[in-house]
Amino acid sequence: MPDLSHYGEDAVVSRLTALLEAGPGTLTGPGDDCAVVEGSGRGQVELLKTDCVICGVHFLPDAPPRKIGWKAVARTLSDFAAMGGWPRHLMVTLALPSDCQMRWIEEVYRGMNKCARTFDCSVVGGETSSLPEGSPVMISVAGTGSARRSQVILRSGGRPGDLLFVTGKLGGSQRGRHLSFMPRLEEADWLSRSFRIHAMMDLSDGLAMDLPRLASASGCGFRLKEEALPRSRGVTAEEALRDGEDYELLFAISERSSQRLLAEWPERFPGLKLTPVGALSSDGTEGLSGGWDHFRE
Amino acid sequence: MPDLSHYGEDAVVSRLTALLEAGPGTLTGPGDDCAVVEGSGRGQVELLKTDCVICGVHFLPDAPPRKIGWKAVARTLSDFAAMGGWPRHLMVTLALPSDCQMRWIEEVYRGMNKCARTFDCSVVGGETSSLPEGSPVMISVAGTGSARRSQVILRSGGRPGDLLFVTGKLGGSQRGRHLSFMPRLEEADWLSRSFRIHAMMDLSDGLAMDLPRLASASGCGFRLKEEALPRSRGVTAEEALRDGEDYELLFAISERSSQRLLAEWPERFPGLKLTPVGALSSDGTEGLSGGWDHFRE
Repeated sequence: MPDLSHYGEDAVVSRLTALLEAGPGTLTGPGDDCAVVEGSGRGQVELLKTDCVICGVHFLPDAPPRKIGWKAVARTLSDFAAMGGWPRHLMVTLALPSDCQMRWIEEVYRGMNKCARTFDCSVVGGETSSLPEGSPVMISVAGTGSARRSQVILRSGGRPGDLLFVTGKLGGSQRGRHLSFMPRLEEADWLSRSFRIHAMMDLSDGLAMDLPRLASASGCGFRLKEEALPRSRGVTAEEALRDGEDYELLFAISERSSQRLLAEWPERFPGLKLTPVGALSSDGTEGLSGGWDHFRE
Repeated sequence: MPDLSHYGEDAVVSRLTALLEAGPGTLTGPGDDCAVVEGSGRGQVELLKTDCVICGVHFLPDAPPRKIGWKAVARTLSDFAAMGGWPRHLMVTLALPSDCQMRWIEEVYRGMNKCARTFDCSVVGGETSSLPEGSPVMISVAGTGSARRSQVILRSGGRPGDLLFVTGKLGGSQRGRHLSFMPRLEEADWLSRSFRIHAMMDLSDGLAMDLPRLASASGCGFRLKEEALPRSRGVTAEEALRDGEDYELLFAISERSSQRLLAEWPERFPGLKLTPVGALSSDGTEGLSGGWDHFRE
């Protein structure tokens, strides 16, 4: 009987989500960065997201615990950014082997709290559970938030001809940035208020993996200008494409709007690059294949 | 440096939650069955909860996967019952070793979906992540829901003299019921609409562990009539007290209201026992000590 490594992450997710029945009030179910459900505020929708970090997968045992906490929360917040929304309340599940040091866990919590407060949200609840000895620490962070109904940005709204942009620089995140990155909440909030962004997501598995997801959700192909990729210092084009854990924004916007965007961005965010990296097309893909897959070796 | 087993679960939780800063809109933070935050609907509050099940802790490797899924969702729903609220949307984090069988996971998902739909809520999002080989499967379920503001039931509202009731029968859940229990959502909904319930929680760690939590949150002591405990068939009084995983309701209500409750309950829920097991007192405890602690051996 085939196991997970046979399928790859996207196939696993789509097989599983096919088993779920959408209830009333669900506007966008599994498959986008957050789920979108009816909100009770006027003109608002509610966003829901859960994510996790696991020792040995998302951080190494000797990583500073405060940074592990920061990352656990920042990953979830990044998905709210990807929708053009804002997070509000967070819940934490900590699964811990009982030989875990109390001081280590307190540092993790301080890091979680710091990241939450930096972005005006708060950890309102949690659950701790024991793990069999030798199991890796696991931290799951679920969040609720909201977005203006008219400004929610899905992955699926891209159109052929849209230009593709990424924020920041790609690649080399494993050297440290993956533990201390800033979720692009302010940038995404400004983008969603100021422009009609057709499609957006955050880059967690590398552009090589994530761009095809956005294009496919939009029913488009794409062209990627590999030579145009904004690279972190000392990183090859290949690494910029495939390293993953960048947590930068990838988005699609009409060519016409992109002129104003390129003019206004440097004034609004002088410290952060914004780079056109290609375009959506009506069919076919050019410029890449492959990336980080959770279930493939 | 002390590790977790030195502290016990309640001390771990209270040390960690002390590190969190409550944000605006948080009505009840960590420590109750759900967090309670401002809702945007009139007269409504939002409830938030996360919980998890782990292979080797909450289920055995050979448990039927559909029941594992049921339990993962039912545990979270049970916490909404404990507040007198109702769940609406659920998010799932699945952490899986890559040698996990696809068919097994699909069965888990079917069980989760079935439990969700049984109680009119839906799984709207999820995250799957790979685990290092040999790690135990971990399923975390976060939920959002709501309650009428005037009818939210905390653990902390009990008063000296209140009678204590439990639903159903206690003990022996490990023989099978822990995988297929019904969260007491309907019962709790009826209770919160029909009576002024002063304090309530669901029994997950055994009455011996959970009753002191409710009493302590209410600033009360308690008397427990051990001989009055409703026991599952073939279970000793000691097991009924300490086995855990009953997921029945424990609540406190004034002696005066309890007369009407005892008259109306059998008509409304003819198949489910309701038993007075003791009372809250102004100080001291009588009748027990000890129970299941996640971090103590």
